[in-house]
Amino acid sequence: MPPIESLIEYFSKFPGIGPRQAKRFVYFLLAKDPMFRENFSEALVRLDKEITQCGLCFRYYQKSYERDGKCPICADAMRDSSKLLVVEKDVDFENIHKMSIWDGQYFILGGSLPILEKEPTKKIRGRELFNTVQDRAKNGTLKEIVLAMSATSEGENTLAYLETILPPLAEKYHLKITSLGRGISSGTELEYSDHDTMHNALENRK
Amino acid sequence: MPPIESLIEYFSKFPGIGPRQAKRFVYFLLAKDPMFRENFSEALVRLDKEITQCGLCFRYYQKSYERDGKCPICADAMRDSSKLLVVEKDVDFENIHKMSIWDGQYFILGGSLPILEKEPTKKIRGRELFNTVQDRAKNGTLKEIVLAMSATSEGENTLAYLETILPPLAEKYHLKITSLGRGISSGTELEYSDHDTMHNALENRK
Amino acid sequence: MPPIESLIEYFSKFPGIGPRQAKRFVYFLLAKDPMFRENFSEALVRLDKEITQCGLCFRYYQKSYERDGKCPICADAMRDSSKLLVVEKDVDFENIHKMSIWDGQYFILGGSLPILEKEPTKKIRGRELFNTVQDRAKNGTLKEIVLAMSATSEGENTLAYLETILPPLAEKYHLKITSLGRGISSGTELEYSDHDTMHNALENRK
Amino acid sequence: MPPIESLIEYFSKFPGIGPRQAKRFVYFLLAKDPMFRENFSEALVRLDKEITQCGLCFRYYQKSYERDGKCPICADAMRDSSKLLVVEKDVDFENIHKMSIWDGQYFILGGSLPILEKEPTKKIRGRELFNTVQDRAKNGTLKEIVLAMSATSEGENTLAYLETILPPLAEKYHLKITSLGRGISSGTELEYSDHDTMHNALENRK
Repeated sequence: MPPIESLIEYFSKFPGIGPRQAKRFVYFLLAKDPMFRENFSEALVRLDKEITQCGLCFRYYQKSYERDGKCPICADAMRDSSKLLVVEKDVDFENIHKMSIWDGQYFILGGSLPILEKEPTKKIRGRELFNTVQDRAKNGTLKEIVLAMSATSEGENTLAYLETILPPLAEKYHLKITSLGRGISSGTELEYSDHDTMHNALENRK
Repeated sequence: MPPIESLIEYFSKFPGIGPRQAKRFVYFLLAKDPMFRENFSEALVRLDKEITQCGLCFRYYQKSYERDGKCPICADAMRDSSKLLVVEKDVDFENIHKMSIWDGQYFILGGSLPILEKEPTKKIRGRELFNTVQDRAKNGTLKEIVLAMSATSEGENTLAYLETILPPLAEKYHLKITSLGRGISSGTELEYSDHDTMHNALENRK
Repeated sequence: MPPIESLIEYFSKFPGIGPRQAKRFVYFLLAKDPMFRENFSEALVRLDKEITQCGLCFRYYQKSYERDGKCPICADAMRDSSKLLVVEKDVDFENIHKMSIWDGQYFILGGSLPILEKEPTKKIRGRELFNTVQDRAKNGTLKEIVLAMSATSEGENTLAYLETILPPLAEKYHLKITSLGRGISSGTELEYSDHDTMHNALENRK
Repeated sequence: MPPIESLIEYFSKFPGIGPRQAKRFVYFLLAKDPMFRENFSEALVRLDKEITQCGLCFRYYQKSYERDGKCPICADAMRDSSKLLVVEKDVDFENIHKMSIWDGQYFILGGSLPILEKEPTKKIRGRELFNTVQDRAKNGTLKEIVLAMSATSEGENTLAYLETILPPLAEKYHLKITSLGRGISSGTELEYSDHDTMHNALENRK
């Protein structure tokens, strides 16, 4: 396929990008000077050379920061290794991490489970979570797994799935499984709030 | 002012209605047959004849339903009179009430406080709340006041204001003052959630 | 029906208003002082007393401005009575009239025709247009009928319908039938423009 | 800069892309298998090897399609070389070309002029247009230049600029300069239409 059409096809696969915007991207690139395209393309190539994935939390990070075969966050002795925060996506991790409100460890599932998903292990790192939890519980000090899923139908479904595979481990290693507190969140207007949110907000009043 | 212009002016004061839609309302009314306008206008007149406001909770209700000088909800002996839910607006009350998740009493403030509002008592029924609480505490069984404000800046501000005027009463009558639980609410996506929401969601995990 | 519920039902019939906003309207009215409701209701009653519809152009106007049994615009001798602008809705007339770009007469159809409408004469004033045109052509100086429909599917359909009923009159009285010029309109971006618009814009280039 | 941050920066420069979506793009790429990234990066490199810009119309096209030093459209003898359509952006050209409503030649300005732009020739190919027009007029059969600008403030401004630089050429070679027809365009509702659009629609009625 000619490169313009090929690139339009690639960009159309990007999250949230339709064929119209994909086309604008290609014209944007064509209008830039060749140096821009070269540097951009090289940054892409460097992803594979310089970025790796942590075998414990499955975060992407720079190879040069590796310590004891782990990413700097997993290797950070200042972090509370008794708590593990499980999130769906890399951007969820990013968003929470930059807030500096969590001092434990992380685990990234790599996705969420649509309702009626037949092959959960192809969509999220369920097995890898099992192994990480087992590993951290056996050799470490893990006490609590916080399932931090979005309050969307896919998030709820992912939560429900994890709550079926983790209990055996939790029992064996005396781990607490918790999930995020529910209630009104920033911006919630009572006029428009739904039954579940209000029910939780009243239950969890304090 | 001629009636068309006058009505446009009235409709422009309705919540969320600009002059353009106000004009469409008037043309809509003009295009209806005279009976429609007559019945509509009569329904308006009936508001003043048949609707009254409860002196305890400040809800609007039909006069014919009055019992012992109270609205049917305030007079309902099946409701738990030890708990009072304070909301900002009538529509907040409506929304929560129809969910059947609250079995206590209600109080409607009639509005919320913008930041730096100089005359809070002109915007919300602060004094009336004080009186209702005092009345319910002295002669009744009131134990808890739930401040159910929206998680918006006006809601937060209203909450902060109520938390300055209620404590003397709370102390005198041993009342608990609570507010709605905070956390992720239906639809919250972790990728886009803000610091406060995530902080609360982690704090209130369970 | 109790007046609150009755008013909610009335407001829900207003253009663009759903039950939620209808409810907010009623609470808005209840929170106003009784004088507001009284004056508002009176303005409604005055619609029937003081407003009438012109028998020639079908515009609503104040009875007190009637001249020779016509509205002031139809009676205005300064207007060019050789040209008649036919529009769908009152708000279309309003919008064009306030621009001061048309010095002829007007006719308001009172609506538009959905595709496959079975009873056109119940939706728009087709017969009345026929009579007005005949009247103005026979007794006056009418030369041109401008069919000023929106460029929407209903507008196109209305235009097509009028183009089937007017030609006999046009032929009999030597009237020109025209419609609005097509091309790019304020805000049109060529990147997003559709086939018909660009085709017309190129055809009508000058 | 590390490649993740570097790519986020690159994607943030793409039209319509903010830092948040740029980040999602990078995570999207990281989650793909290496082959995807390699092919994507190669398609980028191929842009420079296989795509060139036509010296007459300034369109990007595949080098292998070059004929007589021109792009296939400029070289197409079946096209009416007496008419030149000048557009602002590549996507404008794309949109119009795929409609098959223009059988003349094209010229792409490569952008539009913001109001008060001090260096027009850095933003659009004004000089190149001048040369192309001169070339096509001197050696060819050019008769008409159609200035096909968007009906936006930048488009109007671009149009006004071109109308200052083209007249000398037009006079010298007896060229007609036209611009797109104005009027109502698909979707225009008369209720919301603006003064200029209605003025043009009435002027250009037929």
